[in-house]
Amino acid sequence: MEINGVPIDNTYAEAFPTWISRVIITAVNTEWARKAATEATGFATSAIGCPCEAGIESELRADQTPDGRPGVAILICAAKKKLKEQVVERLAECVLTSPTTAVFDGLPDAAEKIAVKLHFFGDGFEYQKEVGGRKCWVIPIMEGEYVGEEEFGIVKGVAGGNFFVMGENQMAALMGAQTAVEAIDKVCGVITSFPGGVVASGSKVGSNKYKFMPASTNEKYCPTIREKVPDSKVPAGIKGVYEIVIDGLDEKCVGEAMAKGIRAASMVPGVKFITAGNFGGSLGPYKFELNKLL
Amino acid sequence: MEINGVPIDNTYAEAFPTWISRVIITAVNTEWARKAATEATGFATSAIGCPCEAGIESELRADQTPDGRPGVAILICAAKKKLKEQVVERLAECVLTSPTTAVFDGLPDAAEKIAVKLHFFGDGFEYQKEVGGRKCWVIPIMEGEYVGEEEFGIVKGVAGGNFFVMGENQMAALMGAQTAVEAIDKVCGVITSFPGGVVASGSKVGSNKYKFMPASTNEKYCPTIREKVPDSKVPAGIKGVYEIVIDGLDEKCVGEAMAKGIRAASMVPGVKFITAGNFGGSLGPYKFELNKLL
Amino acid sequence: MEINGVPIDNTYAEAFPTWISRVIITAVNTEWARKAATEATGFATSAIGCPCEAGIESELRADQTPDGRPGVAILICAAKKKLKEQVVERLAECVLTSPTTAVFDGLPDAAEKIAVKLHFFGDGFEYQKEVGGRKCWVIPIMEGEYVGEEEFGIVKGVAGGNFFVMGENQMAALMGAQTAVEAIDKVCGVITSFPGGVVASGSKVGSNKYKFMPASTNEKYCPTIREKVPDSKVPAGIKGVYEIVIDGLDEKCVGEAMAKGIRAASMVPGVKFITAGNFGGSLGPYKFELNKLL
Amino acid sequence: MEINGVPIDNTYAEAFPTWISRVIITAVNTEWARKAATEATGFATSAIGCPCEAGIESELRADQTPDGRPGVAILICAAKKKLKEQVVERLAECVLTSPTTAVFDGLPDAAEKIAVKLHFFGDGFEYQKEVGGRKCWVIPIMEGEYVGEEEFGIVKGVAGGNFFVMGENQMAALMGAQTAVEAIDKVCGVITSFPGGVVASGSKVGSNKYKFMPASTNEKYCPTIREKVPDSKVPAGIKGVYEIVIDGLDEKCVGEAMAKGIRAASMVPGVKFITAGNFGGSLGPYKFELNKLL
Repeated sequence: MEINGVPIDNTYAEAFPTWISRVIITAVNTEWARKAATEATGFATSAIGCPCEAGIESELRADQTPDGRPGVAILICAAKKKLKEQVVERLAECVLTSPTTAVFDGLPDAAEKIAVKLHFFGDGFEYQKEVGGRKCWVIPIMEGEYVGEEEFGIVKGVAGGNFFVMGENQMAALMGAQTAVEAIDKVCGVITSFPGGVVASGSKVGSNKYKFMPASTNEKYCPTIREKVPDSKVPAGIKGVYEIVIDGLDEKCVGEAMAKGIRAASMVPGVKFITAGNFGGSLGPYKFELNKLL
Repeated sequence: MEINGVPIDNTYAEAFPTWISRVIITAVNTEWARKAATEATGFATSAIGCPCEAGIESELRADQTPDGRPGVAILICAAKKKLKEQVVERLAECVLTSPTTAVFDGLPDAAEKIAVKLHFFGDGFEYQKEVGGRKCWVIPIMEGEYVGEEEFGIVKGVAGGNFFVMGENQMAALMGAQTAVEAIDKVCGVITSFPGGVVASGSKVGSNKYKFMPASTNEKYCPTIREKVPDSKVPAGIKGVYEIVIDGLDEKCVGEAMAKGIRAASMVPGVKFITAGNFGGSLGPYKFELNKLL
Repeated sequence: MEINGVPIDNTYAEAFPTWISRVIITAVNTEWARKAATEATGFATSAIGCPCEAGIESELRADQTPDGRPGVAILICAAKKKLKEQVVERLAECVLTSPTTAVFDGLPDAAEKIAVKLHFFGDGFEYQKEVGGRKCWVIPIMEGEYVGEEEFGIVKGVAGGNFFVMGENQMAALMGAQTAVEAIDKVCGVITSFPGGVVASGSKVGSNKYKFMPASTNEKYCPTIREKVPDSKVPAGIKGVYEIVIDGLDEKCVGEAMAKGIRAASMVPGVKFITAGNFGGSLGPYKFELNKLL
Repeated sequence: MEINGVPIDNTYAEAFPTWISRVIITAVNTEWARKAATEATGFATSAIGCPCEAGIESELRADQTPDGRPGVAILICAAKKKLKEQVVERLAECVLTSPTTAVFDGLPDAAEKIAVKLHFFGDGFEYQKEVGGRKCWVIPIMEGEYVGEEEFGIVKGVAGGNFFVMGENQMAALMGAQTAVEAIDKVCGVITSFPGGVVASGSKVGSNKYKFMPASTNEKYCPTIREKVPDSKVPAGIKGVYEIVIDGLDEKCVGEAMAKGIRAASMVPGVKFITAGNFGGSLGPYKFELNKLL
């Protein structure tokens, strides 16, 4: 099929489960909420080499947060046994320390909870208070008082939703990918954890030459070695390929993000082909068929 | 002494050694260099709970980088034995994956070097090339080719340079701190690793009440409990306190950053007092006396 | 009454009619749509000294625009006889010239229309085309093709909705005003045309001392001369006052913007009083009573 | 000649004189200085349809401004007889009204001066004060006090320095142009007055078909009608063309900006040709030969 004249490959993206915590960070304004959230979700592109995958899910208006201030929601994604430690450390080091922030559970209806006990930081000066119907701890700090919930819902979500934007040159592919990310930013329940939401160097599991490497360049999608790789998947005339990787709370929102992103990329002049990555079903249980999404 | 009518405390900031790598990240434009750098320096506010301390040191014009493209320099600070791993992981996961980036050693004259071997990612398709006089590896990736040096100088620098901005209310103190960080951003050789460069919740080592805590709120600087803390260091009339923490390549640049930052904060209406933190000399060998700096 | 502990004056904002055109600007991404819109709505704070009042009303997702690309909507407000010229000049000089832009009528249901004939710029190479159900002209330009509608609905809207944020010092008042503007940005149908949405130097009509001045400082609201002005309206303890001025398509959206803005400002520590400006009903027919809005 | 493999046309840019005022705007931080400056330099792309040409010249550190606060310098360019009115209106409506701003002459050594008397706005409450060696007026306003000089140097500068970035597709050309503007932003003494600094729709004087048009599309540089225009200057394989137009204080800085911009554009993949625009010497006295600049 074609979208806006761009051929869409007849394939599917393969994704797998991950555990996710959704944290609402509010602040005196969106700028400060974003600064805290950016630090808290940094060094979190890929679970292969980072301690977790994380990103900003959405901006929240004052009437969408428990304390009536502007905020952002972030997702932190990891294996279940690692998730609590990551949420604790990232909130303790990157949000509690950040000006004017407060923190609330973004999945209050989740069946499973983790405890994030920051109130011991108060050294006995802390106290409890209800804010917007949430049980919070208030910790005296240098700027005044920090307010935060300490129970956070976690859910089993979806990691690795993806598609590939291919362009007749690098800049066309990059603008296509960037515009896709912008569209995905407006979809609820998802993040794109890589820098600017875009992956420049997709990888395959393992390495043919260096056996000690857990992952290496996905040579079948590399335009500059197209002639050297017998089974290259780079179509003729393609000079740049970017991958968008999406984590989300459920299949529905990941699918919606893929559809919105692909549609947006297809509008950018010079984008020539869109496909997706899978491992023949060996990696994970979720399949997103591009033609059905669109 | 006073600066712009703001009393400056007759005290000193105490700082201690850290090992530092300075990495130059270039990209097709500054926006993309910043996106990679922001991800690579995230989750890196304080060595207490984060794997390292890191931040963006400066923007670089095209004529200041080895490959003639715009870029940024970042500092990554950690104990010597942890530094290499952090540089490797952060470059591999957050910069190699980021659109259009290249990476160069930002301390080419340093006596000590660490090896950051990313080229195995190329799975045999990688090759060597000189760029701007630097020996680089070129790795075929999906967007085209990644270029990077693999030897990075490291130096013993200074961590924990600091000062405290106190205001007649929280917003005055915050704007003072923010303006200070803006001034420090323009000083070479330093970073402020906390979110937005500002620390809202300063800590003391250990805890009086909870013995399992490695650090807890610095109650002597907390305005809301001033009446409850006998030896509170919060002057009368102060309602908000922020700390600026500075890491840098040497004492000179940390001192310059402190001076520029204090001067900038003192210009903001409602900033009423500026002091600094020390542990009586028990923590580290560096002393920055505020009155001498200014 | 009080909102979040901040007293709200028992008064009303007085506003008056203006004619408004709403223009949708799309581009390859939101960044470029914003650049065009920012230029097109510049030098347009107040109808007293500027050719019109203008600002960005809202961001639009790709599925909210005629051509399926991201965009922004701007409002241009002026007296009826001046409006057409301002829309023509601002689109011709600031949007047609801007990379990747297209332009659509943002008030297609309005009874009255103005013609904005840019297609003569095509010098005979232009042609007509339907885009998203809209009759457009396509003009060959250096980057490729510009697409634009040439009929724009205009409506009689409301100018001068307002409220005043007063703080115990300047920075608290400024942060309160800035947070208010952020909340108003998310309300449909309105703009705040001053820089950053905030007015630092409110004015009264005419001047007591200099008869040639059409407007001069509103001394009753100036904190530094509170003691010199017998009927000063600055409450004791107020050191900074900012005005938020709102133009909008109808009374309902201006009222909603005022309510959201006041509520947001009241959340900022150090904001101590909120009031509004009127001329006793002599200026315009619209009255927004603060107590009824909230 | 070639720069980074990109052919540079053997031609020159033709430019003409303009009168320029340089205004320094300071504020509590760079963000607020930029907001005021952006509004003050809006609706000012081209002297053909806008009241003037204007833009942000540079950011200034606190130690580069008269009042020791961060700021920006803007240039306002117009015919001599129109310049004073534009400076007065833009400062009165867009800077005096903007939070925390102060204004200083950015050309104190210029032989010619214009008077910008804003102090009458103070309605008798204004007073004089020296700030950083400058004679200023202080005007009580709602936020506190506005400070500004009232004499501004003007010089005869250069308008219309230019070059054209041509790409194998639109996105490559756009990224090339954008990167060029970023490099020019760091050159002192110059502005690029169009949105984002880039012109998408270059024009010729007059129109062949519509005699009432003062300017129309420069069809010789339009890629989509290359086949229909006998003397098209679009080389084979070019699909997108952007013009960068530079105004500056003197020939030297305009030439430096052109050189830096061309060099930056040449680094962007997909940029294939760079040329410049002239009218055979009939328009203006300044010639910038590309090959000599580089």
